[in-house]
Amino acid sequence: MTYCVGMLVEAGLVMIADTRTNAGVDDISVYRKLHTLADSPDHLVFAATSGNLSATQMVLAQLAEGMPSPEGGEVPRRITDMPSMFRVAQLVGEAVQNARVSLGRALEAASVDASVSILLGGRVGDQPVTLYRLYAEGNFIECQQEQPFLQIGETKYGKPILDRALQYATPLEEAVKVGLISFDSTLRSNLAVGRPLDLVVVPANPESPLIERRIGTDDLYFNDLSTRWSLMLNEARATIPDPPFMME
Amino acid sequence: MTYCVGMLVEAGLVMIADTRTNAGVDDISVYRKLHTLADSPDHLVFAATSGNLSATQMVLAQLAEGMPSPEGGEVPRRITDMPSMFRVAQLVGEAVQNARVSLGRALEAASVDASVSILLGGRVGDQPVTLYRLYAEGNFIECQQEQPFLQIGETKYGKPILDRALQYATPLEEAVKVGLISFDSTLRSNLAVGRPLDLVVVPANPESPLIERRIGTDDLYFNDLSTRWSLMLNEARATIPDPPFMME
Repeated sequence: MTYCVGMLVEAGLVMIADTRTNAGVDDISVYRKLHTLADSPDHLVFAATSGNLSATQMVLAQLAEGMPSPEGGEVPRRITDMPSMFRVAQLVGEAVQNARVSLGRALEAASVDASVSILLGGRVGDQPVTLYRLYAEGNFIECQQEQPFLQIGETKYGKPILDRALQYATPLEEAVKVGLISFDSTLRSNLAVGRPLDLVVVPANPESPLIERRIGTDDLYFNDLSTRWSLMLNEARATIPDPPFMME
Repeated sequence: MTYCVGMLVEAGLVMIADTRTNAGVDDISVYRKLHTLADSPDHLVFAATSGNLSATQMVLAQLAEGMPSPEGGEVPRRITDMPSMFRVAQLVGEAVQNARVSLGRALEAASVDASVSILLGGRVGDQPVTLYRLYAEGNFIECQQEQPFLQIGETKYGKPILDRALQYATPLEEAVKVGLISFDSTLRSNLAVGRPLDLVVVPANPESPLIERRIGTDDLYFNDLSTRWSLMLNEARATIPDPPFMME
């Protein structure tokens, strides 16, 4: 399995993905799930992927080669040709559909799920940073201010903290912290999600530098966050009074 | 959907279930999911149920009528005839299998899931309090000291706090508190789980009284627990330093 979260707050975009893949619990590997789809002066696009690994790699390979021109023309369409993030999402959605058609029948015959989910975030030109969630059919939704995050994969363990703590006005460094707490809860409860985590931060202000980081099992900040969070949850629990109906 | 948790600690058994059922988001009702299967001097048995409501009710009705005798005899087998909780679990598992066979084909034709999951807890005679989780096929597992809880339904939102906070040595009132925090996280993140909650506590000491309680939306203790937990999570988050790589 996988856990990926994308957070789009006023100050920018944060995307975090784990790296554990498994074909059964006895076949566990580390694969990067946070991918740079474009990094040019005008196009900065990242994708976090969840689902069938061969279908995911087919999606990425198609996008790297360029998608065939719909009129049968010679010129492949690339992410860096797209005039907006919406068009980028459409192109990625087309690659997802292609992979599904091309692999789906063979994999369904073997009862293997060929579906892929993608969080797609970034910026084209001087347009605002945006975040999309693409479904297995290639359709997609855009992240909105009312719920400034999107998740794919093993989403439930880490959702309560996001529901409680993340607003559109949350500062960027606070959003990173909340995202890492959400991962900490998931890592503790589900072996199918594992470190290292990959993280990218795209500030809304184009002048601010991009931040990319891999958080391994020896990451001092993450380990400190995990220990502190655990201790403070215990303390918080201890200050809540015992149920009165238990003392009657 | 549903969320039910059973906790078996040294001091006794706690079972909590929500009451929301839904056939689509536009058809939401309140149904009791925590049932008293037996309450006699020698048999104290509770079941928390999740899954298809008609199949669940068929299981309960069969157990109330008594299961047919396997040799075609006249005497129905009842929970109060069983000499141990293991035998009670076998009888309930048989009712689950019967309901599946009797409803399964018709419901499968309509692509409706006829499966039922059950948490079964209680005591027979002066034997120890035990807790089982019955699967849709009627097989079951017993709760053990290493992980002193079992869940059914929408289990993931509320699992992190149980993983962190619940041990076999946890006192009974603390276990109730932890269980309610687990419900608070689930209620916040998933509309398919709703109050009132039903709760039963069976102390390991047979001299101590049974505690049964319904926790509605106006329950002062639960509302205070929910507010305090939320505040303290915010405080805990604030004391964790910002990520150093965000300040470079």
